[in-house]
Amino acid sequence: MLKVAVVGTGFIGSVHAKNLACHPGAELVAVNDVNLESAERIAATTGARVVANVTEIFDSKDVEAVLIATPTDTHVDYLECAAQAGKAIYCEKPIGLYYQEAEQAVSVVQATGVPVMLGFNRRFDASHVAVKQAIDQGEVGKIEIVQLTNRGPRPPSIEYIKVSGGQMRDQTIHFFDLLRWLTNDEPVQVYAIGAALVNAAIGEAGDVDTSIVSLQMASGALCQIDSSRRAAYGYDERIEIFGSDGLVESRRQNFRGMSVYKGRKIIEDGLHPNWFERIEQSYYQALDAFVGAVTQGIAPSPSLEDGLKAQLLADQATDSLKTGRPVRVTK
Amino acid sequence: MLKVAVVGTGFIGSVHAKNLACHPGAELVAVNDVNLESAERIAATTGARVVANVTEIFDSKDVEAVLIATPTDTHVDYLECAAQAGKAIYCEKPIGLYYQEAEQAVSVVQATGVPVMLGFNRRFDASHVAVKQAIDQGEVGKIEIVQLTNRGPRPPSIEYIKVSGGQMRDQTIHFFDLLRWLTNDEPVQVYAIGAALVNAAIGEAGDVDTSIVSLQMASGALCQIDSSRRAAYGYDERIEIFGSDGLVESRRQNFRGMSVYKGRKIIEDGLHPNWFERIEQSYYQALDAFVGAVTQGIAPSPSLEDGLKAQLLADQATDSLKTGRPVRVTK
Amino acid sequence: MLKVAVVGTGFIGSVHAKNLACHPGAELVAVNDVNLESAERIAATTGARVVANVTEIFDSKDVEAVLIATPTDTHVDYLECAAQAGKAIYCEKPIGLYYQEAEQAVSVVQATGVPVMLGFNRRFDASHVAVKQAIDQGEVGKIEIVQLTNRGPRPPSIEYIKVSGGQMRDQTIHFFDLLRWLTNDEPVQVYAIGAALVNAAIGEAGDVDTSIVSLQMASGALCQIDSSRRAAYGYDERIEIFGSDGLVESRRQNFRGMSVYKGRKIIEDGLHPNWFERIEQSYYQALDAFVGAVTQGIAPSPSLEDGLKAQLLADQATDSLKTGRPVRVTK
Amino acid sequence: MLKVAVVGTGFIGSVHAKNLACHPGAELVAVNDVNLESAERIAATTGARVVANVTEIFDSKDVEAVLIATPTDTHVDYLECAAQAGKAIYCEKPIGLYYQEAEQAVSVVQATGVPVMLGFNRRFDASHVAVKQAIDQGEVGKIEIVQLTNRGPRPPSIEYIKVSGGQMRDQTIHFFDLLRWLTNDEPVQVYAIGAALVNAAIGEAGDVDTSIVSLQMASGALCQIDSSRRAAYGYDERIEIFGSDGLVESRRQNFRGMSVYKGRKIIEDGLHPNWFERIEQSYYQALDAFVGAVTQGIAPSPSLEDGLKAQLLADQATDSLKTGRPVRVTK
Repeated sequence: MLKVAVVGTGFIGSVHAKNLACHPGAELVAVNDVNLESAERIAATTGARVVANVTEIFDSKDVEAVLIATPTDTHVDYLECAAQAGKAIYCEKPIGLYYQEAEQAVSVVQATGVPVMLGFNRRFDASHVAVKQAIDQGEVGKIEIVQLTNRGPRPPSIEYIKVSGGQMRDQTIHFFDLLRWLTNDEPVQVYAIGAALVNAAIGEAGDVDTSIVSLQMASGALCQIDSSRRAAYGYDERIEIFGSDGLVESRRQNFRGMSVYKGRKIIEDGLHPNWFERIEQSYYQALDAFVGAVTQGIAPSPSLEDGLKAQLLADQATDSLKTGRPVRVTK
Repeated sequence: MLKVAVVGTGFIGSVHAKNLACHPGAELVAVNDVNLESAERIAATTGARVVANVTEIFDSKDVEAVLIATPTDTHVDYLECAAQAGKAIYCEKPIGLYYQEAEQAVSVVQATGVPVMLGFNRRFDASHVAVKQAIDQGEVGKIEIVQLTNRGPRPPSIEYIKVSGGQMRDQTIHFFDLLRWLTNDEPVQVYAIGAALVNAAIGEAGDVDTSIVSLQMASGALCQIDSSRRAAYGYDERIEIFGSDGLVESRRQNFRGMSVYKGRKIIEDGLHPNWFERIEQSYYQALDAFVGAVTQGIAPSPSLEDGLKAQLLADQATDSLKTGRPVRVTK
Repeated sequence: MLKVAVVGTGFIGSVHAKNLACHPGAELVAVNDVNLESAERIAATTGARVVANVTEIFDSKDVEAVLIATPTDTHVDYLECAAQAGKAIYCEKPIGLYYQEAEQAVSVVQATGVPVMLGFNRRFDASHVAVKQAIDQGEVGKIEIVQLTNRGPRPPSIEYIKVSGGQMRDQTIHFFDLLRWLTNDEPVQVYAIGAALVNAAIGEAGDVDTSIVSLQMASGALCQIDSSRRAAYGYDERIEIFGSDGLVESRRQNFRGMSVYKGRKIIEDGLHPNWFERIEQSYYQALDAFVGAVTQGIAPSPSLEDGLKAQLLADQATDSLKTGRPVRVTK
Repeated sequence: MLKVAVVGTGFIGSVHAKNLACHPGAELVAVNDVNLESAERIAATTGARVVANVTEIFDSKDVEAVLIATPTDTHVDYLECAAQAGKAIYCEKPIGLYYQEAEQAVSVVQATGVPVMLGFNRRFDASHVAVKQAIDQGEVGKIEIVQLTNRGPRPPSIEYIKVSGGQMRDQTIHFFDLLRWLTNDEPVQVYAIGAALVNAAIGEAGDVDTSIVSLQMASGALCQIDSSRRAAYGYDERIEIFGSDGLVESRRQNFRGMSVYKGRKIIEDGLHPNWFERIEQSYYQALDAFVGAVTQGIAPSPSLEDGLKAQLLADQATDSLKTGRPVRVTK
């Protein structure tokens, strides 16, 4: 049983805490949040102890692993503290607000040798995993076109937008990671177009809410990623990989299997209303992979390196958005 | 070029006439109908000559084949005339109104040795053909359950119902034929339940408009056929064959490929509005098979024997409907 | 928090115990099984106490509700004991092996006035619930044809078959219940055909493994239920309700959303491998309904009466299977 | 009856000739081709006369409309001749090899005032038309993201590639036209990436076989078009329009409705093997619109202006491909 503490019990931290409480190979021993009540609520239903001061978490002898689910601006600090305390780490993405602070934190953490996994949970979605397996088994041959879609369902608050780093760093980053993971390939050039079509205030805040990114991969493959902060029909996330021998896709998924046939129409119950319902299971699967890797002494994946690479792409896509020009991907 | 005359230029006769006019291996030489205007309309667009008296068709030297698309009560007479005149025959189903007259006509026709094909056109639907191929290639193993559905879209007039012989003989008969063809097997017992749920007048006319037939096959396989004269969502025809190794189906088909995603719903353009749009292509394919068989000297299929067998099943299902008891299938 | 004891910690009992342990409105206080180890395993992960002697469960002051998940031959006894002890009861189906003992138990239990729910969990499947709502909202008009399908994936052991009461009582019974629930209607006549097509030993044991049941409802609607103990493609459960204004269905569901397009084929990941994966969620939902009803003082549904009615249909379908004749549904 | 002559009886010219021969409002009076045998084959099955010298077509009194289906390098010449002879014109796309010659021809033709329709037949595909109607009825609100896909099935010969003007002008041009038509909007900037991934010889010929085009529309909407000369699973053409109120799509379409369920897979018969089978019907519908417009004295659509605009986009996308830079769309 891996003894885990959760730092940050907001929405995602709570999800992780409950998953840890149910996991047969893990024990949730402690929870911490600046909002004490939030931590206490989680403690009440899971039996974990509340730790008021985060440094105590890092000092606790019985904590073997720390799950960091606090706001992004604390990540680099907590990553370094946890690593220096010798804890295994599961850290929500991104590593940090800025590439340079992230890169520096990574070098500090890597020096300690502790196992770290970055929370790109979409890599653990059952259908996405099946796509990856199909690719790796050569089902589609040499990859030629990648199409990634992620839309909606609703834009976050303007307050959130302002500190989010922008759509590329906050939303599209998951798909930069999926792209690298699925293709076993690296982008060499990125071009992005975008606009604030959903909410003009997002544009006034210097961000976009609707965007298309075109990428060229080292192998010559082409990729397009379209992102929207709003979809009027639920949460729409899809993967399509087109190769020399065929196509593999992770389709849109209905939230239940009911259809009505009437007049000249077929009316199905549609997509999941929120992104969380669509990918909820992947959080448990990601945690399961982390617990398995740490207890077996294997390096967890996705790594901090993966986190840096996705973050670099997000930065360079943001540059392209701002300058209107294609950007070569270089560190 | 097979020289064909069409007798009966009502709806289906017109379809056949146009298909013959377009077929590269056939020539539509003559058309006849008791409604002279109807025949003239077809003649005008196809270049065929109008023959006012049907006996002239059978006497015409340049007519090699006769397509019989007249009302059912004339079939046995025209079958015999055409056969005795040595013409190849394509005859719309059923062979006759009553099993005995049909059986007698078949023996007369068979004595002449002319090639005859019965118009069970659904055997030529591209998707149904694909199901048959999958079964014959062993894809589903030993057949265990057969589910056939045919519904709607609208009941015919009460006048038609009264002379139709009833739902089993008029509508379900196509599926008795499909059942035998798909399974390479024969029903040994039939049980039918039904009611006039769509229109009470159909019940008053001694018929049903909604029915379920259960059949046991010689192999032990079980079959259910549901038929309705009305479907509020277009024309719904499906085949499902469940076997020891898997399942094969001919699915419901949309009339076009448009979907709208809105709110919590996905709204697709639905089924074909009428049975004809759904199976239109099969009329051409059936004719093509007939022309091919006759010109190559091969016996056409489905045969008169197939017609008799389906008709017998329709009669015995009608018996079951009336008596409320299962009926052993015996001649 | 409703304090619940689980009697019987076999497969389904364990599922219920884990669901209770996670349910925010319930507390799993005690578990019992003739196999002590099985009960101890559940206790270890849930914190419930193990009660070695089942009568202690009924005597326990802190047990407010009893969940009966033992073999069928103990149900009537435990139902009576729990009821006489004043406990709320959730009982797995069927009420008893024979209709008469079931009926007698029901009268004993009903006399005590305790709330009882029968474990027809399929009524709580999200897609089936959506079908029920569509019907109740009048989406399909007057019901005319009901098609229920349940197949596979694998037959149980011959030992199980021998004590199961037969396919109607063991498997199809869920669909007799769904039929009544969905249609708000009662069957008046039942006819069943069946055979041992999957395993001859099932036939030698006096049972069938493949069957079709045809039913006529009081409203005139027609119903067909096809059941198979084996499906070579996973677990296939479907509902289709055809009415005067349209059709509503609970479709087959894929276990994940991956497709490969290659050559002339589209290859999707298919159905759930087992019935449990397909309807797992409905167990939690059923329990949730029970906990909600008991804590709010509402009569739980489905009731014992529902259990008796489904059991009667299973008995009469079994009669029809044996006699080869349609059976009027009368108590 | 509109009297039409077809100039050019290669593959597409033959399709048009047969469609005209079947059209109730048109009469195919004459055919011409540099390959006399090809013209004679069409004449034999349609009853049209063969005209050996193309100028005779323009001089023929009984020819009211000319359908130009010759190689692209003859289009501008024939357009001008036909217009000056006062014929109505249906011209296959593109207007000419180069934008300037096309523009000049358009001004000559427009001066004559003859009705002209450009052969962007995809505008007449039933599913695409349904998408257009949904957009125009406001089903998806304000358009935000457009995704157009066209792939395969097989690259043309290198000889054809060399004279085709490149993938943008030869293949993607249809989708530039669909984009303008569907959105009622104009692109203001275009960026294209591409590579010769299917066949290196295509790259050596200075062309690409796989490409992604990103466009910004005047309204702010974003668009991506992906094109491939090869798809290992048939012909894949799709439209997806994402707007403020929902999404509408013209889906991939299967060539028939057969599925097999086996093991853990569902195997469907897939896409049409060729582009022609997929959009065959749209050729007839396009011709029908032309015949209808000309006989009713309405201006046919799509117009020469539409042809010029699509051609300009193809030119500027080709520029972007070559320079690696986004290009402002200006005349």
